Amino acid sequence: MPLGFKFATIQAGFRKENRPELALLVSDFPAVIAGMFTQSAFPAAPVLVGKEIIKNNSTVRGVMINSGQANACTGEQGLQNCYKTLQLVTQELDLQASDILPASTGVIGAQFKMELWEQAIPKLVKNLGQQTVLDFAKAIMTTDAFPKLMEEEIQLSTGTVKIAAVAKGAGMICPNMATMLAMVICDAQVEAKLWQEICAEAIEHSFNRVTVDGDTSTNDTLYALSNGASKVILDASNRDVFQAALTAALQKLAYMLVQDGEGATKVLKITVSGANSEADANQVARTVAHSPLVKTAMYGRDANWGRIIAAVGRSGVSFDPMQVSLNICGVQLFEKGQPTDLDFDTLLAKPMAGRDLSLDITLGTGSGCYTVWASDLGHAYIDCNASYRS
Amino acid sequence: MPLGFKFATIQAGFRKENRPELALLVSDFPAVIAGMFTQSAFPAAPVLVGKEIIKNNSTVRGVMINSGQANACTGEQGLQNCYKTLQLVTQELDLQASDILPASTGVIGAQFKMELWEQAIPKLVKNLGQQTVLDFAKAIMTTDAFPKLMEEEIQLSTGTVKIAAVAKGAGMICPNMATMLAMVICDAQVEAKLWQEICAEAIEHSFNRVTVDGDTSTNDTLYALSNGASKVILDASNRDVFQAALTAALQKLAYMLVQDGEGATKVLKITVSGANSEADANQVARTVAHSPLVKTAMYGRDANWGRIIAAVGRSGVSFDPMQVSLNICGVQLFEKGQPTDLDFDTLLAKPMAGRDLSLDITLGTGSGCYTVWASDLGHAYIDCNASYRS
Repeated sequence: MPLGFKFATIQAGFRKENRPELALLVSDFPAVIAGMFTQSAFPAAPVLVGKEIIKNNSTVRGVMINSGQANACTGEQGLQNCYKTLQLVTQELDLQASDILPASTGVIGAQFKMELWEQAIPKLVKNLGQQTVLDFAKAIMTTDAFPKLMEEEIQLSTGTVKIAAVAKGAGMICPNMATMLAMVICDAQVEAKLWQEICAEAIEHSFNRVTVDGDTSTNDTLYALSNGASKVILDASNRDVFQAALTAALQKLAYMLVQDGEGATKVLKITVSGANSEADANQVARTVAHSPLVKTAMYGRDANWGRIIAAVGRSGVSFDPMQVSLNICGVQLFEKGQPTDLDFDTLLAKPMAGRDLSLDITLGTGSGCYTVWASDLGHAYIDCNASYRS
Repeated sequence: MPLGFKFATIQAGFRKENRPELALLVSDFPAVIAGMFTQSAFPAAPVLVGKEIIKNNSTVRGVMINSGQANACTGEQGLQNCYKTLQLVTQELDLQASDILPASTGVIGAQFKMELWEQAIPKLVKNLGQQTVLDFAKAIMTTDAFPKLMEEEIQLSTGTVKIAAVAKGAGMICPNMATMLAMVICDAQVEAKLWQEICAEAIEHSFNRVTVDGDTSTNDTLYALSNGASKVILDASNRDVFQAALTAALQKLAYMLVQDGEGATKVLKITVSGANSEADANQVARTVAHSPLVKTAMYGRDANWGRIIAAVGRSGVSFDPMQVSLNICGVQLFEKGQPTDLDFDTLLAKPMAGRDLSLDITLGTGSGCYTVWASDLGHAYIDCNASYRS
């Protein structure tokens, strides 16, 4: 575990389920901060408040996250409630109100029950140091089947630093500049600007490349804190090693999001190459990743490859159809605009029964390439979402 | 029924099911023609051939449609097979090969079994005049639960003309310039250019505004034939009456497509108004219409309105969130960026149990407005699509 961080969780009564749903993280030292937020035109109250804190402060001391209510689309009252919860917790901690960053997840549109917060926060602060980062990861879950946690030791030229990262899914997942909710902590001594650059690059290659249902949330937030507790310096000279390790850690976490997508039974790795640009490859990959027909076929272990080509064809990207090829799990089904005559149902029976399916699409000879990880679409997604509020 | 059209259907053995899947329509007279086709970058062989015939000929004599194989993504062999089927049928009819337009629907990527066509076509032609337009509508069905047919008599200043229109669904439905497969026949005497203008306008306000799953097909085709058999003239002087009637008829047919969308239990009428442009309103409406979270909530009769607002927020359109309002079935849930305090679950319990749900979204004070009709997303869609080929 990174040095100098303490955790607390408590059951505040925000949800019907009998488990903690309020989580607090506090650093012993001021930490530099990177924040990435949803691109939704309806950012939740904690997104607005979190952005403001980051804009006005170079360091923070911690993060408080609740699950149960998203505090999104809650208007002026939602904003005031968010500020009030920060006031309550920072008073108890003897800190400034802007020292703790807020994040929320749950049902959109419902207001906080403030009396529950008032009762819970003193107990939450009293618990500080008694829970682990795994307890924290559990407390922020909503429909997640399992907590998502990565820990890593990174050997830099200057010494050893540690990171831990947590995330939650499992629906309304199509992160745009950040995931639903994620948090990274680190004990490296690093300047804020470099820290933000490193985090932005890691996110671009991890959370921003996964999708469960194409629905970007109002509450997407990633906070990354580095508190310098290790006294090991991270700077331009050893950035590359750290960058690779952080990106890999967040990719694993992003993979877990897809693996635990609501109702998911498969992780589809969709790679588009040979496009005229990365943007084109991205657009084609996402069109395939969001196609209900592709997702249900993969759920049904049916190598119905025509649906993949149909999705490529409706993506809006221009290419020469006679240059397009497709393979699923290494079996070539479509080559330069023509179907192959392989007995693909037999060849793919075993691979399609597995969890990880690769879909490789070549558009032509361009250098544009992009990979997204997507879940399939099955009955459990419908069960989960037809009556989520009840 | 429009005068001067004959129908035939036959079971050719293209599908496992025991029902006709090859359909032929022949006009007694040369008919002017309007054709609208998929925008997919992978147009099926019959789309390429149909476009070519329309480009090179001012009139045609009929349409032949098969269900079972889409003849899409089938390369050069698929094209040759399509031409061969037209050759077979027009030889038997003693017509030119370019007198009959082709259309196909079914599994993408499979080649025609030509021996089945060779056996079926003589019997098909022998049947001509023995089947009705309803038989025709039934023969082109794939996963449709019911045939889609509209018949209308239209009183023009010059006399009475008749139209009939058929369409098929029920999945891979997000028509772009045309629907999956549809055919309009009419006995008016009309010039080709005016006929094409009238049809384009009717389609723009009907098939192009519905969606089941957002997946545009490789085979989308609409053919509209008018053969003049009524000897009643349709021209600029009486166009408006005809236009209104044709548009209304195709809207009813488009509604049926959504109503019979794979697994659908609801028809969502999503209207976005107050946008800066019609394009903005269109984009917001389609984002809501394609949101799996909105569609599953509607299936579950759950007025989880935050998901609708979240979809509006991720649509990529700019607006002032504090000007956005939403009502479902007339119940105001969100007004100028704030939740209302109505007991909406009680108020909406009965309306949400119905088939037709209206979602009205106001973005601001602009004049841009757009309506789409969309299906919900439930278990039957998964059942239908997890193993469509088997």
